[in-house]
Amino acid sequence: MRNIRLIVSYDGTDFSGWQYQPDARTVQGVVEQALGVILAGPVRIGGAGRTDAGVHALGQAAGFRTSSHIQCPDLFRGLNALLPADVRVLYVEEVPDSFDVRRSAILRIYRYLIFTGPVMSPFMCRYAWHIPAPLQTGAMNRAGSLLVGTRDFASFACSQDETTSTVRQVVSFRVRETGGVIQIEIAANAFLRHMVRSIVGTIVDVGRGKTSVEDFGEIIGACDRGRAGTTAPPQGLYLVEVCYP
Amino acid sequence: MRNIRLIVSYDGTDFSGWQYQPDARTVQGVVEQALGVILAGPVRIGGAGRTDAGVHALGQAAGFRTSSHIQCPDLFRGLNALLPADVRVLYVEEVPDSFDVRRSAILRIYRYLIFTGPVMSPFMCRYAWHIPAPLQTGAMNRAGSLLVGTRDFASFACSQDETTSTVRQVVSFRVRETGGVIQIEIAANAFLRHMVRSIVGTIVDVGRGKTSVEDFGEIIGACDRGRAGTTAPPQGLYLVEVCYP
Repeated sequence: MRNIRLIVSYDGTDFSGWQYQPDARTVQGVVEQALGVILAGPVRIGGAGRTDAGVHALGQAAGFRTSSHIQCPDLFRGLNALLPADVRVLYVEEVPDSFDVRRSAILRIYRYLIFTGPVMSPFMCRYAWHIPAPLQTGAMNRAGSLLVGTRDFASFACSQDETTSTVRQVVSFRVRETGGVIQIEIAANAFLRHMVRSIVGTIVDVGRGKTSVEDFGEIIGACDRGRAGTTAPPQGLYLVEVCYP
Repeated sequence: MRNIRLIVSYDGTDFSGWQYQPDARTVQGVVEQALGVILAGPVRIGGAGRTDAGVHALGQAAGFRTSSHIQCPDLFRGLNALLPADVRVLYVEEVPDSFDVRRSAILRIYRYLIFTGPVMSPFMCRYAWHIPAPLQTGAMNRAGSLLVGTRDFASFACSQDETTSTVRQVVSFRVRETGGVIQIEIAANAFLRHMVRSIVGTIVDVGRGKTSVEDFGEIIGACDRGRAGTTAPPQGLYLVEVCYP
């Protein structure tokens, strides 16, 4: 069996998330359907990150195994010819048999966009969270730096998440502002479900001056979801890249 | 009667164009509906430019007359509260009685975006034309400069356009490329129906090397729609601004 990796980009607006659901339009579902046509049989693909409904991807990684001899450039062209315009395959390559698209990943990078202008742009409403107020990015950066390291992120875990451990390693966190758009970028070995959106919702309170940097540090340490802020809406979130050794 | 001007921005993707149609979702229709709620009665608005289905606006100008005493800031807030997210009102002001949103306009600026990367971005498919080939922007600029001036633009007129005169004054034309996106900007006192998209379709042939700059000049001079290239698709077109004295 050959082991194939795809890099996939999608506008998550009209999808019920990445993961296959029998009665909903999902990214995994439409990619599997297109692959099934090309490979003339059912295919199951795995994804490196399970993005929720409305969450976008610039570079999601997906993998599948096949006995087909179809060349990667032909797969690439065939998939982009069959897929709807809101999903594109950016790259197709054969990887070693030992490669697992989820377990082999060492780093995931997510980005979150916040639009702070007084009136939301009609071109940004699918792609950013609208907060029509100035946010103190300096305080947000100071608070965010407290996330970096190997920690228990239970305060930012989704209550429905039944993961055995809530310890993850955050490698970097950065907030920038350009032209009324605040961009938050966070990289970690892996993320808990809703973790980025919970962190964003909580750190926005720091940017508003509602929560101090010290209080943010205490929220991390509390390991209690009840202490964190709201979960930021999905349309501002992008899975930017999945990195492998 | 007070005379009110609105500046409106919209993502044209899910609209059947600007102009009201009884059985279709139009920008004029949704703005009139919201205004009707606020002013408690039917209102008819005029637009400075009639954008086609799928065409966007960063700054369309619209106007209406009302006997209501409602203040402009209240109109602004009320409209943005009632309008769907793909239409936003950016500005509301009272203008002199002699002001006519269409006739008083002295300049309209349009922009057209072309994405030239090999794979269309899922985030650009609603907002640009995909031409996966390099285009010679230098030749496009040289050809475009031949449009500037007061000329008969019959070669770029829509065959269904029953306008008495096809003479318009093009004030500027510019092609720029940044990061795989070609941006064409054209300003004129007024435009014929489909004129920008016909010009873009024809000048793209110059960019591909299919039509020479000299031939482009001859196409302008011919005043014959049969000589021009295809009409570029609507999703790349933006009404940027309508200027008044």
